[in-house]
Amino acid sequence: MQYISSTFIKFCLPFFLLFSSIIYLNAQDKPQDEDAFFIRSIYDQALTDSRSYVWLEHLTTSIGGRLAGSPQASAAVEYTRQMLDTIGLDNVWLQPCEVPHWVRGEKEQVRIVNSSRGSIDLPALALGNSIGTGENGLTAKVIEVQSLNELETLGRAKLAGKIVFFNRPMNPTQIRTFNAYGGAVDQRVYGASRASKYGAVAAIIRSMTTRQDDIPHTGVSVYEEDATPIPAIAISTNASNLLSQLLKQEEVSLYLRSTSQMMSPKPSYNVIAEIKGSTYPDEIILVGGHLDSWDVGSGAHDDGAGCVQSMDVLFLLQQLNYQPKRTIRCVLFMNEENGLGGALEYAKISNEKGEFHMAAIESDAGGFSPRGFSADAEADLFNNYFKQVTTWSPLLEPYGLILSKGGSGADISPLKSQRGLLFGLRPDSQRYFDYHHTAIDNIDAINKRELELGAAAMTSLIYLLDKYGLKKE
Amino acid sequence: MQYISSTFIKFCLPFFLLFSSIIYLNAQDKPQDEDAFFIRSIYDQALTDSRSYVWLEHLTTSIGGRLAGSPQASAAVEYTRQMLDTIGLDNVWLQPCEVPHWVRGEKEQVRIVNSSRGSIDLPALALGNSIGTGENGLTAKVIEVQSLNELETLGRAKLAGKIVFFNRPMNPTQIRTFNAYGGAVDQRVYGASRASKYGAVAAIIRSMTTRQDDIPHTGVSVYEEDATPIPAIAISTNASNLLSQLLKQEEVSLYLRSTSQMMSPKPSYNVIAEIKGSTYPDEIILVGGHLDSWDVGSGAHDDGAGCVQSMDVLFLLQQLNYQPKRTIRCVLFMNEENGLGGALEYAKISNEKGEFHMAAIESDAGGFSPRGFSADAEADLFNNYFKQVTTWSPLLEPYGLILSKGGSGADISPLKSQRGLLFGLRPDSQRYFDYHHTAIDNIDAINKRELELGAAAMTSLIYLLDKYGLKKE
Repeated sequence: MQYISSTFIKFCLPFFLLFSSIIYLNAQDKPQDEDAFFIRSIYDQALTDSRSYVWLEHLTTSIGGRLAGSPQASAAVEYTRQMLDTIGLDNVWLQPCEVPHWVRGEKEQVRIVNSSRGSIDLPALALGNSIGTGENGLTAKVIEVQSLNELETLGRAKLAGKIVFFNRPMNPTQIRTFNAYGGAVDQRVYGASRASKYGAVAAIIRSMTTRQDDIPHTGVSVYEEDATPIPAIAISTNASNLLSQLLKQEEVSLYLRSTSQMMSPKPSYNVIAEIKGSTYPDEIILVGGHLDSWDVGSGAHDDGAGCVQSMDVLFLLQQLNYQPKRTIRCVLFMNEENGLGGALEYAKISNEKGEFHMAAIESDAGGFSPRGFSADAEADLFNNYFKQVTTWSPLLEPYGLILSKGGSGADISPLKSQRGLLFGLRPDSQRYFDYHHTAIDNIDAINKRELELGAAAMTSLIYLLDKYGLKKE
Repeated sequence: MQYISSTFIKFCLPFFLLFSSIIYLNAQDKPQDEDAFFIRSIYDQALTDSRSYVWLEHLTTSIGGRLAGSPQASAAVEYTRQMLDTIGLDNVWLQPCEVPHWVRGEKEQVRIVNSSRGSIDLPALALGNSIGTGENGLTAKVIEVQSLNELETLGRAKLAGKIVFFNRPMNPTQIRTFNAYGGAVDQRVYGASRASKYGAVAAIIRSMTTRQDDIPHTGVSVYEEDATPIPAIAISTNASNLLSQLLKQEEVSLYLRSTSQMMSPKPSYNVIAEIKGSTYPDEIILVGGHLDSWDVGSGAHDDGAGCVQSMDVLFLLQQLNYQPKRTIRCVLFMNEENGLGGALEYAKISNEKGEFHMAAIESDAGGFSPRGFSADAEADLFNNYFKQVTTWSPLLEPYGLILSKGGSGADISPLKSQRGLLFGLRPDSQRYFDYHHTAIDNIDAINKRELELGAAAMTSLIYLLDKYGLKKE
């Protein structure tokens, strides 16, 4: 202790202070004008008195996985409607839509049988929309492929009667993990459909993640119109590596069993709430996410986070007594995961009404620390729009937000033809595919501050869009 | 299923593809020149074949907490030296230094006694360097304060014989959490020392985190030269809230027991490794972190991450067969947490040798997704240096890295007088104080990709510093 006293105080404390006083030039220190001041107040509100985290806790832990057509999806509709009702908005309503209703059934089984290593059960999840194997399951030899194109090379001679194993990994060198996902997910979406054309009896797919672990990732699969449906099941990356290794040494057969099936379509709802604009009520600024999730886990990042953040945008504006000039509308879309039923219905009705969405922001990339927005519009409009919004960059950069060109979100993309400007909230993407479509996408994977910062980021952009509008030329 | 086939394929698949093809303009797509190409190769290497994560797994799970002077700190010295020896560098050596040796002793106790709610044990951790209460503990009334200044206002009349409870929270509205830490940590560092001057018998401190939870955070406390040492113990934020609430209603007494004590100073080491420069061997570019941690948890983010990332810089450069013009030196400093023994010794010897650290980078802000570097130098040099390094921004921004003015790191700050340029790696800070100085700062709080991206970011900056150097005017 006496050792500490002199050396430490003389030499070290200055560094403590120095380290502590690292200056991040943020708006809190020097609000340059009214806009900087209001955006600062949005962040203050979001980080001290917002609702997103408690809403998400309920949505995930009390309601759980919210697959379209499920009782939990209905509960989520009713819960979020009631919560939006508490904010004191101008309108809160449910918009009917029809959604597919797929059910997983019993726990699926994927088992290596009769290998030199004996029988090995692999962590597996049937893919959304996929058919089951029948009660008794099926057993067949496995053939590994790296791409959809490889199916054509191999042809019916090699594929008929087989289980096709799609094993091309997500590219870990992509900095943005969504790009890696985009480069691999064709196997999950189309693998079974394409393999069936060559007589394959089932498809198994390497999970969509850059992690090496035992957690299988589900997600949508699609049977194209000319395809014979066959079972489609994802296995974990560790299981994929093991299977691939075995296949290098010997013939491997798998036993698969899945009782998943498609039920009849179900009625469901988009949940909508808005603050009417005082000056330009017909210019709509939409913020939204999707309320449905997969059935495993509880859809915390995908996309409970986007829903509660979008709800929080209205809550924050109300708490700050902000009266918008334009209509600010929160939309919680139903059935993004396996059909876009809600989004397509929303766009259809909006178009029929002749609505104009001047801007729309979707949060559907996880509740992680926000790093900016990507923007999208019709080609003839984009540059002009983007020039206008990037004049706001000095107001957003203190919060670590960068505007870039890119996609927006699956639910709002159908609104692009209304010729407004679409945005996607861009959180840090490194951890997203640790959780995406898995049993571990739960509230404990959410950091409260990161979630709230996303809500504040969207609220800030909406404030600027509302105040300054967007000129088409 | 038949419902899906037509609607889905016609309308939804385009959005899937659109969503998947979000374009992040990164160097991978368009290497503009040799530098962009080499930096891309650094990231490719880091994300596919680096060592930082496996080294950190060993450091945390096999060795554990590495408090200066502890056997674990010695094990960490030997382990990292051996790992650096495997890389094939020009020099690997240990630099002796003397460090304080504080031990926590038995599990500390902080108990509310005789309150209207009965007795309540509070989650607590003695602060580093603090003295114990003696075997029998102590019991006294509590008085809550919000600042060091408030002590003077209250004076000896109110404080003598009391336990002073420092309860000013970290400001949650700070976007960069280190600023919030800097705004509250004076209570932890000086609280006991200052309170003792007014006759207080002990200090308890609200844990340094923005979270509301049951996890106490330790950290350094300092007895100034004129202070009588009294026990200093942190309690969790939930416990702080409870105690504060009770104090609004009634007098509260606490029973404290801690057997922590300062032992005699111990010999220890900085671990150093380098690749000699081919052209300017006397211009040193340092990269480092600190090898010691607190005794609770296993110092995964603080600062195991910074150590293994710094080691990985050398590994990555070796793997890429990069022969630097300048000397690239990795330094794992000992005793940052409670004395800076290693850093002060390193600077002293370096100055005696007349060395010139042209640049130094410290990673000591967690193994999270990197968002840039802060830069620091002597005032007369800074602008000129910063102008030079910001010409590299177009090469760094594709990886989400922003250069800003700010502090560097506690261990390298003593090198500032050598008139080079110092940097701090700036990871996203939102989650840092969830783990900082706690029992949960373990490997499961680390995301492998985020850790590797930090190593790649530092390697990239070092490549540019090495290639282009820095002109003093």
